[in-house]
Amino acid sequence: MPSAPEKPLYIKVNPRDNVAIVVNDGGLPKGTVLADGLELQEHVPQGHKVSLTDLAQDDPIIRYGEVIGYALRPIKKGSWISESLVRMPVPPELDELPIATKVPAPQPPLEGYTFEGYRNPDGSVAVRNILGISTSVQCVTGVLNYAVKRIKEELLPKYPNVDDVVGINHNYGCGVAINAPEAVIPIRSLQNLAKHPNFGGELMVVSLGCEKLHPTMLVPDVELNEENLCWLQEQHGFGAMVDKIVRMAEERLIRLNQRKRETIPVSELVVGLQCGASDAFSGVTANPAVGYAADLLVRAGATVLFSEVTEVRDAIHLLTPRAANEEVGRALIREMKWYDDYLARGGVDRSANTTPGNKRGGLANIVEKAMGSVAKAGSSPIAGVLTHGERANKKGLLFAATPASDMVCGPQQLACGIHMQVFTTGRGTPYGLAMAPVIKVCSRNYLKEQWPDLIDFNAGPIATGEATIEEMGWQIFHLILEVASGRKTWAEHWGLHNALAVFNPAPIT
Amino acid sequence: MPSAPEKPLYIKVNPRDNVAIVVNDGGLPKGTVLADGLELQEHVPQGHKVSLTDLAQDDPIIRYGEVIGYALRPIKKGSWISESLVRMPVPPELDELPIATKVPAPQPPLEGYTFEGYRNPDGSVAVRNILGISTSVQCVTGVLNYAVKRIKEELLPKYPNVDDVVGINHNYGCGVAINAPEAVIPIRSLQNLAKHPNFGGELMVVSLGCEKLHPTMLVPDVELNEENLCWLQEQHGFGAMVDKIVRMAEERLIRLNQRKRETIPVSELVVGLQCGASDAFSGVTANPAVGYAADLLVRAGATVLFSEVTEVRDAIHLLTPRAANEEVGRALIREMKWYDDYLARGGVDRSANTTPGNKRGGLANIVEKAMGSVAKAGSSPIAGVLTHGERANKKGLLFAATPASDMVCGPQQLACGIHMQVFTTGRGTPYGLAMAPVIKVCSRNYLKEQWPDLIDFNAGPIATGEATIEEMGWQIFHLILEVASGRKTWAEHWGLHNALAVFNPAPIT
Repeated sequence: MPSAPEKPLYIKVNPRDNVAIVVNDGGLPKGTVLADGLELQEHVPQGHKVSLTDLAQDDPIIRYGEVIGYALRPIKKGSWISESLVRMPVPPELDELPIATKVPAPQPPLEGYTFEGYRNPDGSVAVRNILGISTSVQCVTGVLNYAVKRIKEELLPKYPNVDDVVGINHNYGCGVAINAPEAVIPIRSLQNLAKHPNFGGELMVVSLGCEKLHPTMLVPDVELNEENLCWLQEQHGFGAMVDKIVRMAEERLIRLNQRKRETIPVSELVVGLQCGASDAFSGVTANPAVGYAADLLVRAGATVLFSEVTEVRDAIHLLTPRAANEEVGRALIREMKWYDDYLARGGVDRSANTTPGNKRGGLANIVEKAMGSVAKAGSSPIAGVLTHGERANKKGLLFAATPASDMVCGPQQLACGIHMQVFTTGRGTPYGLAMAPVIKVCSRNYLKEQWPDLIDFNAGPIATGEATIEEMGWQIFHLILEVASGRKTWAEHWGLHNALAVFNPAPIT
Repeated sequence: MPSAPEKPLYIKVNPRDNVAIVVNDGGLPKGTVLADGLELQEHVPQGHKVSLTDLAQDDPIIRYGEVIGYALRPIKKGSWISESLVRMPVPPELDELPIATKVPAPQPPLEGYTFEGYRNPDGSVAVRNILGISTSVQCVTGVLNYAVKRIKEELLPKYPNVDDVVGINHNYGCGVAINAPEAVIPIRSLQNLAKHPNFGGELMVVSLGCEKLHPTMLVPDVELNEENLCWLQEQHGFGAMVDKIVRMAEERLIRLNQRKRETIPVSELVVGLQCGASDAFSGVTANPAVGYAADLLVRAGATVLFSEVTEVRDAIHLLTPRAANEEVGRALIREMKWYDDYLARGGVDRSANTTPGNKRGGLANIVEKAMGSVAKAGSSPIAGVLTHGERANKKGLLFAATPASDMVCGPQQLACGIHMQVFTTGRGTPYGLAMAPVIKVCSRNYLKEQWPDLIDFNAGPIATGEATIEEMGWQIFHLILEVASGRKTWAEHWGLHNALAVFNPAPIT
């Protein structure tokens, strides 16, 4: 493995930590002597924790300066602290959290940074020029897919300034309990997806005619007309359906094709942050570097969203003090409680989050994963909280409540109005979104070598000491502006994207 | 509207009924005098109910010989009984149902009916020759879609005996509470989908490498090997991923291409029944005709599945007496209870089922919808009950528990192993499945005229008196055998199918 440093390396994140993680590819063998003289008692896999002190049973295990668990039995200094040795702490009590007690002082503004984007008719901006075709119900999927294929093959080449045509297919609209208390979540999400800023203000809706999610529940009645709404049940057969959709699409392609990129201040950007397939390096390389870039974006006046309730839940006591005010802190707590209840109704808790891959990557439990995950949020004050699918409505760092599932967080952040996403990964996932570019940042050199044509940015050099968090943070910031200006990500290059799995916590019928 | 009969027509289903539905396109105007001298007191829309007697407040409203509601105020003979005049009954009490008290006597066996299908290596049969590519996690969707497009464009034309290549993409596998009590439902469903009979015994799985749904949770460990499992995280980049999937696919296409159709008795067929976008005619034309065909299939020894818990719930007192034995009756009740609880957890009940289209089509509530829906099940004894996603394991008429949502019922019946589906519709939906042919049967002449290139069979002539249920039932039976033998449905002709929305009642994380 060519990039492995020759000398044994390990990372201790915080001075209070009594564990460190092994950096070297393949781990380090028993008997290895580390820089400070610590001798390994056994083989420790890459990304896994080694004890820096002797631990008695029930002693706290500290990483990121926080208790990530308790020793289930005595652990000798230099031992591998595998998942099976760690008892998970209870989550922070939500009713006793300090709120707005440590609001970070604002960092100096960054002036003069811009990108080349599109200006929408309503004043918002776009980083891509996409024809989005909304749907009020999943029944139309087959017809719309057929029509979109024809539009892409026959029309799109004639309109070279248009980046893509996206059918906004989803699994909502009918066969769902549309009056259930939680139905507001998918409905609000789809409303906001229909008006995503990357669609340039063009509205087009394909409906069936008998669905529960009537098009007027998706888009206000006054905005719908014969020119932007196609009811399939009113069309005379499949051929007419496809013809009508194609004709409606072409009218919009003509308009979209006339748009030109122009210089836009970074303060108008809305960037979503997410991690997926994380490992123990995510929290020390990719996530802090992205967090640094997030701080730069906030200093430049942009809006930055971090999300994933189950990966924030165990770090919530570190976040409520950063809430800009009491209201923001209360909203953070409200979203944690809602998700606690949602999981409890299904007979689980936030510990259902971690994956086998997380654990093989060195993450003992959701507490350790959460400590690494929130590093993406940088160090700015938390200026606001968006509930599920709510459109971003202010500048600065916002918490947008979403599930942590990559495939659901992505669509939900799109509903919040992100122009693009920065996605960090440790184990690697070929993730992508159809409606917005996704910059994939990996946590280890190995993954960039393994997937050179999928990973957009490698934060691994932080682990090997070849680069600092600050350096890589600036590089990611500049990459964000380049991609916002039109540079294609690997996922865009290959046309990779996942299904639009909108969050529906309500029953289906 | 050319097919409208000139004279006013209405349908009374059962001698006990005190309402009938209007057949004529466009409804019938006030003052119309019907055959038996009844004069309409007001305009009655097509498919809607007219009162055949004077009703006092709280009088039962009877259709299909069953109470579908109670009059909210006095209703004069000849009046339109709109939804707003009907109070919904409480659902049948599940603890007091008669079980196996009216088991229908077996009808005479039908001998000698066959179709031209494929024989699978394990002895099961297929009606299509499809390469199915399973996935253990939704993260691989983008890569698999890219590979499938290449396979279809570059390879499939070289193997003309293979009908299609289907990537079994779904929204499960990671970011889900995989140890939640209800997670057994999506997992069992995906296990059975991976081995669908229309895949000819060929197994191929695309995995990521760190997902919760490890491939060995999808397919038994002993059946997985380097030849049928592709881990994306082990591939050197996107190009290698696609190359490996394409190579694996071609090995299977070569084998599948050598298969030939052979004569197979109907007794080996497994046919699923579903309805969607129903109207008041569904229960008097399409569903009874399909029910008649279902009886013919059962008489020929086949397996027939009916489903949709929320559309069976209010007719359960008519079904438990038909249960072949106590065990089957108890299983029916178990599935009703499970769904009652599932809906209650989300704050709704079975009345969440009906759609605006159902109501415009004349269905006042879920009780009336259910009475029409169960007509699909014909008159055979109920031989068995399958819980969600369970593979069919006996002959005869089975109840397969599924949501009623078309987009979920379809995939769940596929998991149960249906070779094909018969789908009835009143309002019209361009529904299709990728893994099995779907015969779409409409309830009204109007829909066949409106959608000539989507509807496979028109049961409307039953309403206009031009054909009997028995005649159309036989025609549907023969059409099932033709489609099983290779005749393409309209959905297949156009390549229409919906997403594979597997039922996951457990939380996502």
